[in-house]
Amino acid sequence: MALSAAARLQMVPARVWQAALLAGSLPGYNRPMNTLPTPESRLAALGVDLPRLFPPAGTYVNAVRSGSLVFLAGHIPYHPDGSVAFGKLGLDVDVETGYAAARGAALAMLVTIRETLGTLDLVGRIVRVSGLVNAAPDFTQHTRVIDGASDVLVEVFGEAGRHARLAVGVSSLPANICLEVDAIVEVKDGDATARRA
Amino acid sequence: MALSAAARLQMVPARVWQAALLAGSLPGYNRPMNTLPTPESRLAALGVDLPRLFPPAGTYVNAVRSGSLVFLAGHIPYHPDGSVAFGKLGLDVDVETGYAAARGAALAMLVTIRETLGTLDLVGRIVRVSGLVNAAPDFTQHTRVIDGASDVLVEVFGEAGRHARLAVGVSSLPANICLEVDAIVEVKDGDATARRA
Amino acid sequence: MALSAAARLQMVPARVWQAALLAGSLPGYNRPMNTLPTPESRLAALGVDLPRLFPPAGTYVNAVRSGSLVFLAGHIPYHPDGSVAFGKLGLDVDVETGYAAARGAALAMLVTIRETLGTLDLVGRIVRVSGLVNAAPDFTQHTRVIDGASDVLVEVFGEAGRHARLAVGVSSLPANICLEVDAIVEVKDGDATARRA
Repeated sequence: MALSAAARLQMVPARVWQAALLAGSLPGYNRPMNTLPTPESRLAALGVDLPRLFPPAGTYVNAVRSGSLVFLAGHIPYHPDGSVAFGKLGLDVDVETGYAAARGAALAMLVTIRETLGTLDLVGRIVRVSGLVNAAPDFTQHTRVIDGASDVLVEVFGEAGRHARLAVGVSSLPANICLEVDAIVEVKDGDATARRA
Repeated sequence: MALSAAARLQMVPARVWQAALLAGSLPGYNRPMNTLPTPESRLAALGVDLPRLFPPAGTYVNAVRSGSLVFLAGHIPYHPDGSVAFGKLGLDVDVETGYAAARGAALAMLVTIRETLGTLDLVGRIVRVSGLVNAAPDFTQHTRVIDGASDVLVEVFGEAGRHARLAVGVSSLPANICLEVDAIVEVKDGDATARRA
Repeated sequence: MALSAAARLQMVPARVWQAALLAGSLPGYNRPMNTLPTPESRLAALGVDLPRLFPPAGTYVNAVRSGSLVFLAGHIPYHPDGSVAFGKLGLDVDVETGYAAARGAALAMLVTIRETLGTLDLVGRIVRVSGLVNAAPDFTQHTRVIDGASDVLVEVFGEAGRHARLAVGVSSLPANICLEVDAIVEVKDGDATARRA
């Protein structure tokens, strides 16, 4: 199919796009894997405080298990001190703050996963993550922000933490929180707990 | 990781966030469960008219079953009189109208589920719901709007209707409809119908 | 529930909505199915160049398989010449260009599926597609744009390519790409390859 003139004007070589994205990568990106044997031991080694379980503020629950998959609700940047990060990326929240907020949202997901399965050590794979960034129309660094969540998952689950991901900018989020992250998690074969949490 | 000054300014105690969200809850929220024995009987007791099956306006279908899961396409606020709710929340649609539209989109999903499985009584669990609200950048009450869909699912399916949820604001939707809702539905064990609808 | 006056003002007959959407359909929409016997043969008959495998620019992977499902990451309009389509629909990208970009993103997904399964002929069904369009707040033709991706999937997989779909407008995307498309793919029964790619 022939592209219109307008299309050609919008075309930029992939190396430019990749360079633009990678230029935003944080120092911790692609760091060596933690060699401790289990997700729980790796999380303990991170030395981070976990938030309390966040009570859903609406007619929904934090997680539903169906067969070997656990579907997590959208999790917000809920920090151990009980605070929540608000605002829009590209307007009143900077990228580093967004990265920290995404870390916080991922830690909140860990709390929900542990509540659902009893232990993080039953996670077989983080399958899929969506990162929804509350962002101004001209914001472009979603990848760097949502790496805050993805990095936590790889730090805790190792290669089993590498997931398929979607990172997008949304025009607004409940109560103006700065981002939400959800996930689909595969439970290890042989888990003998109840079929659905 | 230390938070920047900008980050700290954005931090608001969780109780404030929760209060802000819960203040928006509608009177019907957390009402007693209907004690009728099946989803079909509970739906009948609601006394609502259902819309006709909506014909997909594009190269897609309303639902695909894979194994024990049914994946629903984005459903729109398609009312029994054939009308569709248009507009943006926070701009030209108010929250109560949005709640009613989300109810309508959930009823449209029920019509699709029944078409796919033959009866709502084969639903084992509503696993996951996404609510996409066509919203102005400063809109904050997505939770209250999408509760319109979630409340219907709990009214009809009881505890099995409680789902993991993502509710976000999008900048635009096809034909300027005011919201879309999709879902992942688990089919009951022992369903002997065709593997894929 | 009684609709407010504001709600009634927003109501438009479904036939108007459908007409508006269908008026945007491209000539290729609903064309006769290709009768070649396999997805690989149908793709070859299309005579299109495929892009190279796109390297993820962040802490994620292009696809994760869990059981019989493959979850694809958000794929971008990555063309065989290495270019990427940027810009906002309704602002600086026209609908035909968006359709072509969605075709490109779907072809990029085919490359990932083939990398994951070894061949497209192991695809049992395209289950679910999300189309995220980088769009101005008044854009309304998301359906026509994302049909670019859906049409490719039906051209290659036939009836098994018809999927449940969500098409929405987002306020921004990484590096200002004009759209992203993801998918959930069912693998054919009897696939003897490794359980997870």
